[in-house]
Amino acid sequence: MEPITHRPLYVGLVHHPVVNRRGEPVTSAITNLDIHDIARTCKTYGVDAFYVINPAPSQQILLEEILAHWLTGAGAKTNPTRCEAFKIVRYAATIAQAVHEIRAAWGAAPETWATSAKGGEKRISWEAARMRLDSSPHTPLIILFGTGGGLAQEVFNLSDFIVEPIQGKKGYNHLSVRSAVAITLDRLLTRRM
Amino acid sequence: MEPITHRPLYVGLVHHPVVNRRGEPVTSAITNLDIHDIARTCKTYGVDAFYVINPAPSQQILLEEILAHWLTGAGAKTNPTRCEAFKIVRYAATIAQAVHEIRAAWGAAPETWATSAKGGEKRISWEAARMRLDSSPHTPLIILFGTGGGLAQEVFNLSDFIVEPIQGKKGYNHLSVRSAVAITLDRLLTRRM
Repeated sequence: MEPITHRPLYVGLVHHPVVNRRGEPVTSAITNLDIHDIARTCKTYGVDAFYVINPAPSQQILLEEILAHWLTGAGAKTNPTRCEAFKIVRYAATIAQAVHEIRAAWGAAPETWATSAKGGEKRISWEAARMRLDSSPHTPLIILFGTGGGLAQEVFNLSDFIVEPIQGKKGYNHLSVRSAVAITLDRLLTRRM
Repeated sequence: MEPITHRPLYVGLVHHPVVNRRGEPVTSAITNLDIHDIARTCKTYGVDAFYVINPAPSQQILLEEILAHWLTGAGAKTNPTRCEAFKIVRYAATIAQAVHEIRAAWGAAPETWATSAKGGEKRISWEAARMRLDSSPHTPLIILFGTGGGLAQEVFNLSDFIVEPIQGKKGYNHLSVRSAVAITLDRLLTRRM
């Protein structure tokens, strides 16, 4: 299976606004391994940049410390391929800030796709999503993934589409966000057999 | 995309024999999040059991402590879906022990597939692997994933096949083992569009 060409593509890992297990709005904390795994996946699939979206100043500092270690610190020497992956990581306080930066880079606002393990309105099938990703070569696109219990309703409201859930075999679909990003990018960006 | 039916299927996460970044044989330590992510992925795709393979007695104790927390301890109450995923986790000291248990359960030795980010001999394409998974309904199969720098040569030697690498877009294919398991199971077990 071979990768396909596609529109300028961004991934956003959202820590706010998300919900907790009871559906209440929260700001989640950064999980170190999310940054590693998702940066490596994004780098593998040719994603232009991976935005870590978190409004808390302490979390921005944490992210910058992690990035410094791998980009210029000891990590860059001991693990150059990890350094390569971390080069595409960006910080944004809000989804709006990430969208603003992408618009500034391409002269066009990105289309926004949300992801969710649940069904609902505005769903786009995997097949339609793949076709759409291959069209409008100059319009960028950002795919948003929620941490914690998933993206809050307001993110679905502002999104153009919500990607069809990854279906489990027997109704169990509680993937980690790290696994969900990996499967989503592979489904969207690899030429099928 | 819908899941497909398949042979009795097992996943093995190998901590020995694996190699480190310099290609030297080592035993790696268990990463807590590997167990969570891979158990959740395996549960999602209907894998029969997920073997954590590590010969170190201290690592067996660590795994049993993690499992106890999620199966019968505080974790089982606070997060029942995580508990569901942990029910399919098994410990084995060696690959041979996992193979022995699977043979005892099904009356036939499992076919063994290794995985690797590199090319080489005995490679089976994704398409051929999918067809093979769908055949011989009574012959079990175990897919082995390496931690650290990947599986050691002796694992490739004992395996029937080595699954084709997951190709990166620009030659970068340094996925985490968590992401590699997710993409591999999705490619093998989900009906393509």
